[in-house]
Amino acid sequence: MITLDQCKAWDAEDELKHLKNEFAIPENTIYLDGNSLGARPTSALTRAQEVVSQEWGEDLINSWNKADWWGLSTRLGDKVAQLIGANPGETVISDSTTLNLFKALSAAVKIQAEIAPERKVIIAEKDVFPTDLYIIEGYIDLVQKGYQLVLIEHPDELETTLKAHQTAVVVLSHINYRSGYFYDMEQVNQTIHQYNALVIWDLCHSAGAVPIDLNKTQSDFAVSCTYKYLNGGPGSPALIWVNAKHQNKFWQPLSGWWGHQRPFDMADHYEPAQGIRRFLCGTQSILSMSLIECGLDVFLKTDMQKIREKSLNLTDLFIQLVEQECAEFGFELITPIDHLQRGSHVSYCHEHGYAIVQALVARGVIGDYREPAVLRFGVTPLYLSHEDIWHAVQHLKQVMLNEEWKNEKYSVRGQVT
Amino acid sequence: MITLDQCKAWDAEDELKHLKNEFAIPENTIYLDGNSLGARPTSALTRAQEVVSQEWGEDLINSWNKADWWGLSTRLGDKVAQLIGANPGETVISDSTTLNLFKALSAAVKIQAEIAPERKVIIAEKDVFPTDLYIIEGYIDLVQKGYQLVLIEHPDELETTLKAHQTAVVVLSHINYRSGYFYDMEQVNQTIHQYNALVIWDLCHSAGAVPIDLNKTQSDFAVSCTYKYLNGGPGSPALIWVNAKHQNKFWQPLSGWWGHQRPFDMADHYEPAQGIRRFLCGTQSILSMSLIECGLDVFLKTDMQKIREKSLNLTDLFIQLVEQECAEFGFELITPIDHLQRGSHVSYCHEHGYAIVQALVARGVIGDYREPAVLRFGVTPLYLSHEDIWHAVQHLKQVMLNEEWKNEKYSVRGQVT
Repeated sequence: MITLDQCKAWDAEDELKHLKNEFAIPENTIYLDGNSLGARPTSALTRAQEVVSQEWGEDLINSWNKADWWGLSTRLGDKVAQLIGANPGETVISDSTTLNLFKALSAAVKIQAEIAPERKVIIAEKDVFPTDLYIIEGYIDLVQKGYQLVLIEHPDELETTLKAHQTAVVVLSHINYRSGYFYDMEQVNQTIHQYNALVIWDLCHSAGAVPIDLNKTQSDFAVSCTYKYLNGGPGSPALIWVNAKHQNKFWQPLSGWWGHQRPFDMADHYEPAQGIRRFLCGTQSILSMSLIECGLDVFLKTDMQKIREKSLNLTDLFIQLVEQECAEFGFELITPIDHLQRGSHVSYCHEHGYAIVQALVARGVIGDYREPAVLRFGVTPLYLSHEDIWHAVQHLKQVMLNEEWKNEKYSVRGQVT
Repeated sequence: MITLDQCKAWDAEDELKHLKNEFAIPENTIYLDGNSLGARPTSALTRAQEVVSQEWGEDLINSWNKADWWGLSTRLGDKVAQLIGANPGETVISDSTTLNLFKALSAAVKIQAEIAPERKVIIAEKDVFPTDLYIIEGYIDLVQKGYQLVLIEHPDELETTLKAHQTAVVVLSHINYRSGYFYDMEQVNQTIHQYNALVIWDLCHSAGAVPIDLNKTQSDFAVSCTYKYLNGGPGSPALIWVNAKHQNKFWQPLSGWWGHQRPFDMADHYEPAQGIRRFLCGTQSILSMSLIECGLDVFLKTDMQKIREKSLNLTDLFIQLVEQECAEFGFELITPIDHLQRGSHVSYCHEHGYAIVQALVARGVIGDYREPAVLRFGVTPLYLSHEDIWHAVQHLKQVMLNEEWKNEKYSVRGQVT
């Protein structure tokens, strides 16, 4: 039996517990949705005031140089690089994950088209966050050269699918947004490369959640948002990482002036910048971009191994406590038990999932719901404690014991985020 | 002879003069660069604090509904619509101008390909802000179906170029970023349509600067940034407007989940939203987006006719004062004298343009420089007075009389914005 006292004892030994002070978490809230929108770093308010008041208001256009607005994309790219096993000059922050995937996909397909034009298949997962599929569809519809999207339903099908098709590119979610399934990046890259395909990793649910080493695992491309585990702020611009060996091979088609070799020459012909800067496009949202640094700076006070260790402790604890306290209520765990296959969130299927999540929110326990019937609990080691997990599961138990989810107001479907 | 007293008298009669209080302009500054980065609305600081502190920090993911983050793109789109002659449901704020041009171009070309596939030429202007050319190049390189970019060097060449080529699309800058040349939208649209081409207007230097009526002039597509005359904040997301008759004709290829008909179904196949929402792509930078409203709300306190009238008064005054005070210094006006062809900035060529701009900046007169040899002075009627224009020209005169521009430090080229 795990007890509250045991949880408190674990918290007392927690090396990362001081980092909670770096975040503004609302009172009476246990926030288990940092995998949808990361909590606000306390420094973000001061930073926003500085950018709006001083950089925009006082220094105006001079801030492009004085505050290095122009260099934000690469400077923040080099910071986030430290969390994903990238070298300086391989990552930029820019646009959205969806758009960055379009850039990476265009580049990967073009590289393949020059080597082996018969490779016309793009493999992706049916159960991925769907914007990845939509952008692949949009790309195929635009270029119209017989490319084909083939979906796998389970990670086990990857190799047989590679065997069956001349594959150009594989797009995979490093950690599945719904189940929390976690791919072994190194092993999967080996398999994909064995079949001469290139890989694009979507790191939205893994960047800032687990250690990643894009170079050591010989990945080709990666994209990620920065507003989940990285705590960059609502809808903050996304990252794109490109293996240095591919960077200069291809002119990505979203070729705006920020990606030009000499953007201020105002030349009438595009000449892509050498290196990762060619993956930039137009002028970026400076205010949203600036706040990303507040989240990244918290990460740089610790390291991803320690974060991963605590994350596994907390997700183990969540799973054990649900078994211990809520066994009778029919929650079906869909997140892998195996540490090697588990990301940093825990998901259950339950036929009344939607209403249960709403009843929990009413109690201050913020998780979220994903179709179909999935309750999702994100575990962010920077600002969650073992005691938080204990109380979250106690609230879940009360919601079920008291049948609070039966309250009619919890079954009204609003917009889910 | 125009005198300072005359300028003060005009200011006393200025119906828009109270609007200057809506902006935070630094002390001892005459800001003539609102056509590069609009000044900060005073309300933007409070708004930024609310978004960061309350909406992100306290309400967290609940803000997607409670603060209507999800609806920002369309809600702000409908506000800006009032400044550009658009109906509700025709405009969204999203991504960057460059990316929105890619969406519009893809849509326009595809519409043409279905009607008349032989129309393979895309006409643009050589002297346009070059990101427009770069994205056309990127598009052509990607789709590779024999499309060809043909550049015109002067507006007069448009009709002969249309006559000479089977044209699919014409991309034009409504007001030229360098010279301030202002197209007659209605007349140009008629010419373009007479040759069965579609038009995409880049409104970056005209939205918020001059009255625009996209529907009345029968335009097809328009894109614009929001951070110049619209005062949305550094790099704030851009607008895209699509004539209602074209909206549902084509699946634009940057088909992210925000453009899906039912984004929260998490369906594995893209189904474009009906209407303008299909021109959305991925998750947007909420903080940068939110502040756009502060600028738009100032515009909604007056109307574009009054703004235009004051703008012409101020640009006339600037031109007359430079003639009166600086005739001997060799400034060559490159902005049209004709009101019908003039936007809201005034540009001069001068061989020492770069250093002169730096010397003016040192005196608190912020204009900017554009290659080659162009001094650019943006006139933003919301926060500039006749007296400001008087003093700006007096500073210019002093810079020239004292040969301040010869100071070595003003010739060192930094990054120009």
